[in-house]
Amino acid sequence: MPQSQAPSPASFAGWLDDTNDITRAFLAAGQIPGLINIAGGLPDPQVYPVDRLSEIAAQSIAEFPNETLGYGTIEGLPDLRAAVAQRYSTETLHLTPENVLITTSGMQALDLIGKVLLNEGDTMAGQFPTYLGALDAWRPRRPQFRNMNLQTNDVDLIGAMTGAKFAYIVPNFSNPTGRLVPEQTRRDLIDAARQTGAWLVEDDPYGGLSYDGPIPPSALELSAEQESSAPGPYQGPVIYLGTLSKMVAPGLRVGWVIAVPEMIAALVTAKQGSDLCTSGLTQRMTCKIFDAGLIEAMNPVMLRLYGERRNALLAAMDRHLTDFFDWQFPEGGMFVWAAAKDERLNTDELFKIGLEELVCVTPSSVFDSQEEFRRGIRLNFTINDADRLEEAVVRLARATERLLARIG
Amino acid sequence: MPQSQAPSPASFAGWLDDTNDITRAFLAAGQIPGLINIAGGLPDPQVYPVDRLSEIAAQSIAEFPNETLGYGTIEGLPDLRAAVAQRYSTETLHLTPENVLITTSGMQALDLIGKVLLNEGDTMAGQFPTYLGALDAWRPRRPQFRNMNLQTNDVDLIGAMTGAKFAYIVPNFSNPTGRLVPEQTRRDLIDAARQTGAWLVEDDPYGGLSYDGPIPPSALELSAEQESSAPGPYQGPVIYLGTLSKMVAPGLRVGWVIAVPEMIAALVTAKQGSDLCTSGLTQRMTCKIFDAGLIEAMNPVMLRLYGERRNALLAAMDRHLTDFFDWQFPEGGMFVWAAAKDERLNTDELFKIGLEELVCVTPSSVFDSQEEFRRGIRLNFTINDADRLEEAVVRLARATERLLARIG
Repeated sequence: MPQSQAPSPASFAGWLDDTNDITRAFLAAGQIPGLINIAGGLPDPQVYPVDRLSEIAAQSIAEFPNETLGYGTIEGLPDLRAAVAQRYSTETLHLTPENVLITTSGMQALDLIGKVLLNEGDTMAGQFPTYLGALDAWRPRRPQFRNMNLQTNDVDLIGAMTGAKFAYIVPNFSNPTGRLVPEQTRRDLIDAARQTGAWLVEDDPYGGLSYDGPIPPSALELSAEQESSAPGPYQGPVIYLGTLSKMVAPGLRVGWVIAVPEMIAALVTAKQGSDLCTSGLTQRMTCKIFDAGLIEAMNPVMLRLYGERRNALLAAMDRHLTDFFDWQFPEGGMFVWAAAKDERLNTDELFKIGLEELVCVTPSSVFDSQEEFRRGIRLNFTINDADRLEEAVVRLARATERLLARIG
Repeated sequence: MPQSQAPSPASFAGWLDDTNDITRAFLAAGQIPGLINIAGGLPDPQVYPVDRLSEIAAQSIAEFPNETLGYGTIEGLPDLRAAVAQRYSTETLHLTPENVLITTSGMQALDLIGKVLLNEGDTMAGQFPTYLGALDAWRPRRPQFRNMNLQTNDVDLIGAMTGAKFAYIVPNFSNPTGRLVPEQTRRDLIDAARQTGAWLVEDDPYGGLSYDGPIPPSALELSAEQESSAPGPYQGPVIYLGTLSKMVAPGLRVGWVIAVPEMIAALVTAKQGSDLCTSGLTQRMTCKIFDAGLIEAMNPVMLRLYGERRNALLAAMDRHLTDFFDWQFPEGGMFVWAAAKDERLNTDELFKIGLEELVCVTPSSVFDSQEEFRRGIRLNFTINDADRLEEAVVRLARATERLLARIG
């Protein structure tokens, strides 16, 4: 009988129509047998210190039962807020726990920033191409996006940020490009934030994955150089996002925001209505992970494994893809970003033919709110070994040939 | 130097201005030494099976390292979705994993429902008084609220739900009233949902805390009676929310939504941009908690402890508060809801004087989006023992006398 049916999906909020089809296809692709997936951004499970984390989980509950099993304060465990403040403080950057909010993953931090800063129709500027998760997080707020291409010398930062609520950057090994934003550009971004009154959101999941040596200071740190040297909470325009996901394990879903106390307070109000508090268990585990030096112990293992795989992927690309694509060397992170030489090549189409050839790559459309750039692909090198990376690239070359033959 | 400062809080989104001051005062109250807090909705930590949960955490990681430490699918662990579908299925209610989304707490489910159903200015109907967390979750979507008083016989459900995206109810021991919504009203709500095309959101954190015997079937179950008897996913208008928080431990932050597959798919899109996935660790722990029968083992302990405390609170209220307040007997849950006899008494004021007398109660303003009812208070009986409940009520009586003397 018809009245037993649920209400119509026509009752759904408008932003759900903005999600592109390729995202759905992308999410469903994982199920295909024999597929080599170089689309995701997954750590290799072999790097997880399973026994240590299993012990740490048990100890966290046994030693701190009320804290791990009960409700916690919205802003996070006091010990963890203090630990984050301490880890990031430098001679010029003075952080206190009031500068820190613990979040349920870096993704939640993006969601909370959207809630706190964006009224419907507000403008934001984003490093282009833009991390797809940030676009997902902000879509329900229906902002106007402006793209900033930080790889060129002539980007007009003041123009992009004037009237924008914030600018969003991933300066260390950006997702999807794997490139570093140079120190001078970071300084220019801070100056532009100060001149325009926009916030500067610095998302830094990959800063620890530098395969070729030291990287520039974070915008957070650079912005503090211009602060007064008085101790007390940081007061600058940067909203910095950190996470455990790429450095230890994404399954714990723990991240953090560092910002001025007024911003932290507003984010707390947003978090109160989002999930009330982050799991006390995973927060206490994070304290113990910091204390045990697990991040420092895991890092050389990850750098060796992922660095070799990056080189293996680039070598395979050199062998099979030079006719079809251009790319730049990524100094770190998890990805190589490539652009088709043929401007007519649409990587949404390549993605689909790729699935038929049993290889999954990420097409540029998911990083592009303006539909400006349709011939890019992102290739991941962290989850597959060298042989599988070689095979994935061979399959991708075959798919590209098929698509080019079709274009004519 | 002025340009070193962060952007102005004037850049914050408009909904942040709608948060009432009492909520902030309320959150800060926990810090006062000697305070007896009967405001919250916290389980007593003595009910937590600490050793078992510590073991379960360690085993979860050791046995399922990739699943607990890596990224999971947005909709939740397949085993946990299947387990939830099975737990709630009955002879007439046919649930499949496609009917289930795992959420990072019941609060996240409320947030996701707001994202999926509410455009700015859309209308929703809510059981009045309304759980403050739901109001918090939906405030960023800026909806129009309509109150439904389900304790009266003459509520016009069709009128309230016509043109509304959804109706929100907590039918089992509602927060804040502790009362049951009668079975007939549940049926009327389902009929009204079908007639108006509104969804019916049934939030059920307290259904397991029934101190005086059986309770009516859930709206989810009742709505399935009118379904076709064919197996396959549930297709009715109810969006049911469950959580581990009141039955086992809130610190794990695990909840679930049961609804038609189309609604689950839309919620998945919203969750993708909210936290990507719920912690694999806490999800696998939930599977093990179900399998070990921990909920069933803990329930009698909780019912005995909380049932005795409910009676102790009511007895103390009988001794000290009958001159000032009226209240009804709560059959379950965690709260007694009382209304001042004197209509001029504003419980936001009583809350403040209460803090001076070292007792913290929840004023009705936080459950009231329309500013209709200012003389109610919510008293919790689960976290304090009988002696402290007695002392809290004595302090509350003293605070009430002081306020009444001031009113004149």
